[in-house]
Amino acid sequence: MKKFEIEDYISQLSMDSVIFGYEQKELKVLISKFKFGQDSWVLPGGYIKKTESIDQAAARVLKERTNLENIYLEQFRVFGDENRIVGSPFNEVMKKELPLFDAERFDEEVTAWITSRFVCIGFYALVDINKVHPQKGEFDEFLEWRSFKDIPQMVYDHNEILHFALEALRQHLDEKLIGFNLLPETFTMREVQELYEAIYDKAFTPSNFQKKMLDLNVLERLEKKFTGAQNKAPYLYRFKKN
Amino acid sequence: MKKFEIEDYISQLSMDSVIFGYEQKELKVLISKFKFGQDSWVLPGGYIKKTESIDQAAARVLKERTNLENIYLEQFRVFGDENRIVGSPFNEVMKKELPLFDAERFDEEVTAWITSRFVCIGFYALVDINKVHPQKGEFDEFLEWRSFKDIPQMVYDHNEILHFALEALRQHLDEKLIGFNLLPETFTMREVQELYEAIYDKAFTPSNFQKKMLDLNVLERLEKKFTGAQNKAPYLYRFKKN
Repeated sequence: MKKFEIEDYISQLSMDSVIFGYEQKELKVLISKFKFGQDSWVLPGGYIKKTESIDQAAARVLKERTNLENIYLEQFRVFGDENRIVGSPFNEVMKKELPLFDAERFDEEVTAWITSRFVCIGFYALVDINKVHPQKGEFDEFLEWRSFKDIPQMVYDHNEILHFALEALRQHLDEKLIGFNLLPETFTMREVQELYEAIYDKAFTPSNFQKKMLDLNVLERLEKKFTGAQNKAPYLYRFKKN
Repeated sequence: MKKFEIEDYISQLSMDSVIFGYEQKELKVLISKFKFGQDSWVLPGGYIKKTESIDQAAARVLKERTNLENIYLEQFRVFGDENRIVGSPFNEVMKKELPLFDAERFDEEVTAWITSRFVCIGFYALVDINKVHPQKGEFDEFLEWRSFKDIPQMVYDHNEILHFALEALRQHLDEKLIGFNLLPETFTMREVQELYEAIYDKAFTPSNFQKKMLDLNVLERLEKKFTGAQNKAPYLYRFKKN
């Protein structure tokens, strides 16, 4: 692999992504265990090329990690403390490990660039977890879907970024019908309710929840397939295309 | 004045501020008419020093333009299209005018830096308009409070930044009681309602509005001063300190 071309990227500006998925009634996040240091959990992130918009950069990084295109993606906050990287113990690990990992690609100049101060734009993504095939980056030992209730201690300010991402998701869910991006194409009303309960971490009353959802007039109820037996299967819905 | 020290600042990252004020039942914004070009209206903005957080940078720029400290300030969106600056006609004006304005300070290197691509973090500020003493920057011909309903065509994507700032203000106003930052220390209930009407651009029913405000339990009603005459003056309120 050739040298990391720092001159292709904007300096001191990065993006990190909080990739939300939903599985077994739990809101999950795709996080990375880095090869460097111990217990070094990191959000998938990257840099912004001088020739691409910040949205294009975020979509590119997401494609690299999930192999998915056209992901629902939203910027939610900038993290800009001057010592969020430079003052952190993990940055010292990176300074030491990068040249050991590949001295040719991560020479003194590139290592200094990577371990300098960065202002970070936080994006969150909503994906159908069944469609994602996580792809390791070169620094990743492995990637893992973790329940939002079981997030480990992460490097830098990444726990704080996760906190703000969930706040943004909750707030945006109230305004726009973006939650369906986390579901497969068809779903039962109970599954929608369970999704909302996982995100807000509280229970809703089924009758009220169903009424509220149906009143929004965005769900299409599918015909039940005739099974011959007494048909107690719940109705399936899908999001109306327009 | 000495040369603009570009090495003190993060490259390609800027902040612009939408400074909201309220006067004569109108929501207003402090904008700048630049010395360069014709009809070149600009949002007050600046760069981020390598030694300060993005919040500190925003507070510093606000202090420079309003002479106020401890302003209510909130980041609301990043503007990161790759051609938002470089592709704009006004950037060509800047390239030509900066060296003519002061060839020593704005030499080739500094002019190239200023007219390169910038990712911009948008902040909005809420101020008591009576307390602001607008301070011109060196590029400002003058600063002006303009009604949000009478914003001129601005340079770059600054009209879009204004649009998103108002959206953010409306949304945040619903969640948090930040609107009082736009009012003097004491105010009548009618004044609060007029403020909300100016921001949302719609009318509210006085009785409902008053009830909603009082139910929030954050306003303190002041004793009326005994005037001798029949006292028909409305009650004054102030925001409760806690």
